[in-house]
Amino acid sequence: MARTLITGGLVVTASDELHVDVLVDGGKVVALATHGSHGWTADHVIDATGKYVIPGGVDAHTHMEMPFGGTTASDTFETGTRAAAWGGTTTVVDFAIQPKGGSLREGLDAWHEKAEGRCAIDYAFHMIMSDVDESSLKEMDRLVELGVTSFKLFTAYPGVFLSDDGQILRAMQRAGSNGGLVMTHAENGLAIDVLVEQALARGERDPRHHGEVRKALLEAEATHRVIKLSQVAGAPVYVVHVSAREAVAELARARDEGLPVFGETCPQYLFLSTDNLAEPGFEGAKYVCSTPLRPADHQEALWRGLRTNDLQVVSTDHCPFCFKGQKEMGLEDFSKIPNGLPGVENRMDLLHQAVVDGRIDRRRWIDIACATPARMFGLYPRKGTIAPGADADIVVYDPHAEQTLSAATHHMNVDYSAYEGRKVTGRAETVLSRGVPVIADRAYVGHAGHGTYLPRGLCQYTN
Amino acid sequence: MARTLITGGLVVTASDELHVDVLVDGGKVVALATHGSHGWTADHVIDATGKYVIPGGVDAHTHMEMPFGGTTASDTFETGTRAAAWGGTTTVVDFAIQPKGGSLREGLDAWHEKAEGRCAIDYAFHMIMSDVDESSLKEMDRLVELGVTSFKLFTAYPGVFLSDDGQILRAMQRAGSNGGLVMTHAENGLAIDVLVEQALARGERDPRHHGEVRKALLEAEATHRVIKLSQVAGAPVYVVHVSAREAVAELARARDEGLPVFGETCPQYLFLSTDNLAEPGFEGAKYVCSTPLRPADHQEALWRGLRTNDLQVVSTDHCPFCFKGQKEMGLEDFSKIPNGLPGVENRMDLLHQAVVDGRIDRRRWIDIACATPARMFGLYPRKGTIAPGADADIVVYDPHAEQTLSAATHHMNVDYSAYEGRKVTGRAETVLSRGVPVIADRAYVGHAGHGTYLPRGLCQYTN
Amino acid sequence: MARTLITGGLVVTASDELHVDVLVDGGKVVALATHGSHGWTADHVIDATGKYVIPGGVDAHTHMEMPFGGTTASDTFETGTRAAAWGGTTTVVDFAIQPKGGSLREGLDAWHEKAEGRCAIDYAFHMIMSDVDESSLKEMDRLVELGVTSFKLFTAYPGVFLSDDGQILRAMQRAGSNGGLVMTHAENGLAIDVLVEQALARGERDPRHHGEVRKALLEAEATHRVIKLSQVAGAPVYVVHVSAREAVAELARARDEGLPVFGETCPQYLFLSTDNLAEPGFEGAKYVCSTPLRPADHQEALWRGLRTNDLQVVSTDHCPFCFKGQKEMGLEDFSKIPNGLPGVENRMDLLHQAVVDGRIDRRRWIDIACATPARMFGLYPRKGTIAPGADADIVVYDPHAEQTLSAATHHMNVDYSAYEGRKVTGRAETVLSRGVPVIADRAYVGHAGHGTYLPRGLCQYTN
Amino acid sequence: MARTLITGGLVVTASDELHVDVLVDGGKVVALATHGSHGWTADHVIDATGKYVIPGGVDAHTHMEMPFGGTTASDTFETGTRAAAWGGTTTVVDFAIQPKGGSLREGLDAWHEKAEGRCAIDYAFHMIMSDVDESSLKEMDRLVELGVTSFKLFTAYPGVFLSDDGQILRAMQRAGSNGGLVMTHAENGLAIDVLVEQALARGERDPRHHGEVRKALLEAEATHRVIKLSQVAGAPVYVVHVSAREAVAELARARDEGLPVFGETCPQYLFLSTDNLAEPGFEGAKYVCSTPLRPADHQEALWRGLRTNDLQVVSTDHCPFCFKGQKEMGLEDFSKIPNGLPGVENRMDLLHQAVVDGRIDRRRWIDIACATPARMFGLYPRKGTIAPGADADIVVYDPHAEQTLSAATHHMNVDYSAYEGRKVTGRAETVLSRGVPVIADRAYVGHAGHGTYLPRGLCQYTN
Repeated sequence: MARTLITGGLVVTASDELHVDVLVDGGKVVALATHGSHGWTADHVIDATGKYVIPGGVDAHTHMEMPFGGTTASDTFETGTRAAAWGGTTTVVDFAIQPKGGSLREGLDAWHEKAEGRCAIDYAFHMIMSDVDESSLKEMDRLVELGVTSFKLFTAYPGVFLSDDGQILRAMQRAGSNGGLVMTHAENGLAIDVLVEQALARGERDPRHHGEVRKALLEAEATHRVIKLSQVAGAPVYVVHVSAREAVAELARARDEGLPVFGETCPQYLFLSTDNLAEPGFEGAKYVCSTPLRPADHQEALWRGLRTNDLQVVSTDHCPFCFKGQKEMGLEDFSKIPNGLPGVENRMDLLHQAVVDGRIDRRRWIDIACATPARMFGLYPRKGTIAPGADADIVVYDPHAEQTLSAATHHMNVDYSAYEGRKVTGRAETVLSRGVPVIADRAYVGHAGHGTYLPRGLCQYTN
Repeated sequence: MARTLITGGLVVTASDELHVDVLVDGGKVVALATHGSHGWTADHVIDATGKYVIPGGVDAHTHMEMPFGGTTASDTFETGTRAAAWGGTTTVVDFAIQPKGGSLREGLDAWHEKAEGRCAIDYAFHMIMSDVDESSLKEMDRLVELGVTSFKLFTAYPGVFLSDDGQILRAMQRAGSNGGLVMTHAENGLAIDVLVEQALARGERDPRHHGEVRKALLEAEATHRVIKLSQVAGAPVYVVHVSAREAVAELARARDEGLPVFGETCPQYLFLSTDNLAEPGFEGAKYVCSTPLRPADHQEALWRGLRTNDLQVVSTDHCPFCFKGQKEMGLEDFSKIPNGLPGVENRMDLLHQAVVDGRIDRRRWIDIACATPARMFGLYPRKGTIAPGADADIVVYDPHAEQTLSAATHHMNVDYSAYEGRKVTGRAETVLSRGVPVIADRAYVGHAGHGTYLPRGLCQYTN
Repeated sequence: MARTLITGGLVVTASDELHVDVLVDGGKVVALATHGSHGWTADHVIDATGKYVIPGGVDAHTHMEMPFGGTTASDTFETGTRAAAWGGTTTVVDFAIQPKGGSLREGLDAWHEKAEGRCAIDYAFHMIMSDVDESSLKEMDRLVELGVTSFKLFTAYPGVFLSDDGQILRAMQRAGSNGGLVMTHAENGLAIDVLVEQALARGERDPRHHGEVRKALLEAEATHRVIKLSQVAGAPVYVVHVSAREAVAELARARDEGLPVFGETCPQYLFLSTDNLAEPGFEGAKYVCSTPLRPADHQEALWRGLRTNDLQVVSTDHCPFCFKGQKEMGLEDFSKIPNGLPGVENRMDLLHQAVVDGRIDRRRWIDIACATPARMFGLYPRKGTIAPGADADIVVYDPHAEQTLSAATHHMNVDYSAYEGRKVTGRAETVLSRGVPVIADRAYVGHAGHGTYLPRGLCQYTN
Repeated sequence: MARTLITGGLVVTASDELHVDVLVDGGKVVALATHGSHGWTADHVIDATGKYVIPGGVDAHTHMEMPFGGTTASDTFETGTRAAAWGGTTTVVDFAIQPKGGSLREGLDAWHEKAEGRCAIDYAFHMIMSDVDESSLKEMDRLVELGVTSFKLFTAYPGVFLSDDGQILRAMQRAGSNGGLVMTHAENGLAIDVLVEQALARGERDPRHHGEVRKALLEAEATHRVIKLSQVAGAPVYVVHVSAREAVAELARARDEGLPVFGETCPQYLFLSTDNLAEPGFEGAKYVCSTPLRPADHQEALWRGLRTNDLQVVSTDHCPFCFKGQKEMGLEDFSKIPNGLPGVENRMDLLHQAVVDGRIDRRRWIDIACATPARMFGLYPRKGTIAPGADADIVVYDPHAEQTLSAATHHMNVDYSAYEGRKVTGRAETVLSRGVPVIADRAYVGHAGHGTYLPRGLCQYTN
């Protein structure tokens, strides 16, 4: 395999910013060295002068081809992972789903089938548990052995994904004993369904009502609840897509007590708000996801949480549905709008914009987007950093390039952008996956099937 | 009706301690006056020199003749209200139960039938909702009109009393609109049932395991949850039998935010602990109730909560089961022990002991045991204080009398005392109900049927 | 002395609202009785039908004739107490000041001299300690015996009133042993003086800068500090004129822990804001007081504190300086504006307006304005309530009368009103002091010298 | 300069644990590479198989030769830095002291003179400000240019080091504008002096009373105070030697709000307690330092703070005084015992023991002992990590070696060990300072004068 030297750039990891050269061999980083003096030979030399050299992004929350509400997320593993690469992300962790009435393994197999031979970058799986019972609890141990070490449960979506508190407790206990990590979608779905029904009965059918019925207090409630259940189980918990300031406060309170409690947020909560949900006509449908977008004044709490480490990870919850034909299923009833937003391509750039805007520093950018998700989900240091021995998943990032986000130019298979027209500074120029170029000077040079499945280790914060 | 003058005592109410005479006429207090100078004539004169003259106790949480787990609480309305009077309590608010599948009204009628013509003192009803649906929600309005203005829901006891969070939200919304007050038994019953099953599977069958599986964190969780649901509903909530320090903390947090959130504790949580549950042999069964007794170091938080007004009411949750034959149903399995303790006779004295011990002052004693429960449940100032116009429910209380609590001497229809052998200072000497003596100089002179039903007004803290 | 019957009104105390008649004899309330039926004879009958019958107000924080910054507060004891009576207040507790270098007793004597024979209503004294040393610490015991049971110390005003933390600790320790109560003006004066100097150096000389340099954080800091010092001393502390939400939060935190910590606020903080300080020209000088007015969004925290009992008392800090000649001393330099506002006449009415506006209920109105200050400063139940045995300090209050606050009509000796043009509903019609009319049907019928000195007992919350 | 290869070890930094080789050239790390395959030549090869290769420790708080209470700390820069090297520390930041009445520069010069040509390892200086006035405030800017970028102020030691709150505010404002960092010794010294005087007056003269008068609440108070002052100044603050759980809570509260507030603790607070202060006879004097040792149950809060990052740095506050002759100055009066403990040699090992005990992980060990202090005080990445371009301050650490801490074997110039007889696992085998061996296989091979002065950059967390 080719030997590549990346020279002259500023290597930025979660912990360091160093003017060093990076030597890649056999798909791995083999050395970091001060610039210029080591007489290394290489097949390829990438001149990164004036650029950042950063680890490929790790997006720990995607839903490619996910069935939801009678339709299916519009990105396949092929289109979705290609778009990810365009955006500087080299690893995705997608959610396999246990079929109602089936086994975890069936769900995992189905997802393997969707992904295998189609991905432009490496991928791994979490497991969504639809039925927590003796049989699926036992299976959890097996999945951990297979490298599927995290399990998502829902306090939302009664009748679909919701597990009751006893089931959640049991799954947490099992994870506590096998080293797995329980992830939760934390909203009080039973209460929300009451509010949905009442809103519809009052004739409130527009997309903005989606945000009004899924109240911040009901996210905070469920967040507190899963924290207490995890405390009773003696197991950690990772709360996905935190959007409400009151939920951040619950995480902060728990973490101050030293509990192994983790929180993820997503770019949409950091950059969008209920103002988008209230856009005229049916435009708001583009922004329907759950947890919902919040009023703009919640954003400050999320940024602060990212700075204080009360939130640790920014993932995308990438789950795109086209406006035409898909989002439109809810034209007459907001509750029928498929929940989800596209974003896998935009995450690294939006977070770099936050660096430009002074909200976080460069190392924290890499931390929340690469290193911490890799550690959280047992992929570090293979993924998430640039260090001798790590996979050569490397992005040469131009911090000065300007771009305008748009459906016209993005590579995700969806007919709108949630960030249409937004100008950002910074862009991935070249992207290596295990030393192999996927994007080279803003051209796609990868291929479906390059990406391989990553069996994962245990969460490195709790094991 | 006889005119009675109570003279020479120290009248203690929730707000005042005054050396005044009290004139009773027509079952009502008609005047308070400085001692001795008003030339009043009276049929009866009670010399209260050296005694306290206090409002009769209001016990807002009793379960006379309640069916539970295949048996029935051992005090009837006749024996239970008589015992209450012996202990200086002149009003009880008991819980009528909606039959599963039936209407609220059926439940209320059944309880009226049990109580009517049998009570020694006045009584009122709360309503336990077993089925929250469109029909029972509508009935709530009617019950409020009938003077049943508070409704109890459970996050515990799945399959028996548990309502799900959507149902609780609906009931709170309805109460928010009709002025009613939702009371909650706040423990996460679904999680507890998992822990019960696991404990039994490990062979843990003794009474003390009842305390271990019903974890304080699961009380705190449910307390937080019902607070958030009430906040979403825009309605108040009253949490019954708070026992865990973590639950008190949740109430304190909510009250600091100005939320209309209320908390009740009971003498058993203030004076007993898991040490009692762990008494040798099957003795611990005597102390099995839910929420359970907590380790003794939780008591300080409860007393502090009573002093800081984060807890407002002390009721008994009186629900006696005889040790022989009833508690023994759980000899082989703690989860089969009927939940409940006797206490309606002991509350006023135990709380006076707290005055003697310096934990609370005299006015706070009357506040938490008489005035606040009366205000909370729409009975004030008819009950709960001594003021012109109020019912003449008056206790002449000897603060120096010493007594030893014991099943041998108590008047509750149960074969043990939860406080056997405990010495306390203070005792009701004479008890008037609407001006009529029920206890006179430590003799029972009342009769079944004197007590009348009290239709209640709305909660006076929130309406 | 005349026997007076007040009949037909609604008697409102901190704890009750009762339709009862009040019989006054010998300057005392001798009886409360249900309306109409007791055949009492009286020299005077006051028909209070449609009116409230409330305890006379207790204003626990006034500064009559106080020297400050080279001038003297414009109300004498004669004019100030007369104005108080007009406003329904029948007791003031004024601050005697230890002269720098002199004894507490000298200060007390000086204040006795100012007040004696001049007051329209009863009065008492707190003591401001200007020099905390062995001698003044010893004198504290003597003052407690003389009925001066509260001592004010300052963390503000370096070089004038400021005591250092060691001195404050010593005074608290002494109060802890003799039952006295330390009151504190809690602002970090040393830090504020730096900010004042810097503001002036930047040419910021207008009244609004007074509010900007005396930062809320520096009130919160000092509030926290005196709480910790009181905790070390094992003694209570009462924080005067709390204005910042952050300071309320410190009090709430301490009270949740069960500490004997008390907080007072004033009408100016509840009804005025930095908007007033920023009024054009030099108008803002009318609103210069310390602690300063805060941005309007602090008001909600103060009202909530009053509802949750994290704040217990509303006093006026009445300390008027005329706009002409007095406030104008700071025309060129905000730091030379005498600190203080008139208000002794307006307190009861402004707080009644809060009842009308739904911020507090009627009982809480009387609680924070009459009963609690009386209890806090050892005057209850002689003052602060209507009960047999209490002084007949009684106000017949018309809850429907409308009035417009104005310097043109007020009775305080000051050339402006802080509430000029504000319409309020409610007004004292008749005011009795120890049974003697001071205001009768909106006419002043009192006289200088009626008011007598009240030696006070100890704080009733901590002794 | 010699080229050195360190091969076969586990390189542990604050962020990574990598099996890589380290190439050192010209006193710098020039490359990290996967083991074995790069054909590097080197003058020296260190075989680190089975060992850790870690950055040299950075001890950000030492007091060599410090005058205190009429005596002088017993370690000179020569003996103290040599001992530091023995313990695996390669950088110390010592405190220069402004002479009362003199300039900052005079103090700095004096410390330069003490240190120059005498140190075994590199060193830098903080500045203690004894007089905050216009002149010294101006000088702060100059010191920042000279690489003295942090300034310590005291709320303790009235008459010696204490600055009043106005002075602290001014210094913080200046630091806010020049990028400097204010460090504070946070105890309420004025209140403590009162308690000291009272204790002595009661005849309490033993060392343990030192711990009793310097109350945890008074540390918490001052910690809160300096946080609020820093918030007003808009500048960061670093609180040295945090020992009380209540102080940790103040830091946590501030950090949750996103304030730039930092906390340091020391090994003595993590491993020793008031039990040591109470050792029989005068033994307790060995443990007299300020802030004082706390009851053992505070340790858990400190460890938790280190895990949750509410505390960021562990320094030693190394300030040794011999038991004979020095500590004995307080034989009759605990307040005369020189305050300070030896520890510069023990820090890395004690913290490694915490790794062995499971309290922190390896990366956190390096973080709190090397990387964060280097970042905090502007030395990173030159110091505090192992990365290409960094100084080759490297320790080969044997994680399995067992040793017993003792004055008999330690290298600090003091006649006792605070940890006498304590067994720990782990020991520095070889220590390089800028590539030059100081300790080689447990032999001292360094020399006085090798260590050079390090002008520091600004705090990297706030600039």
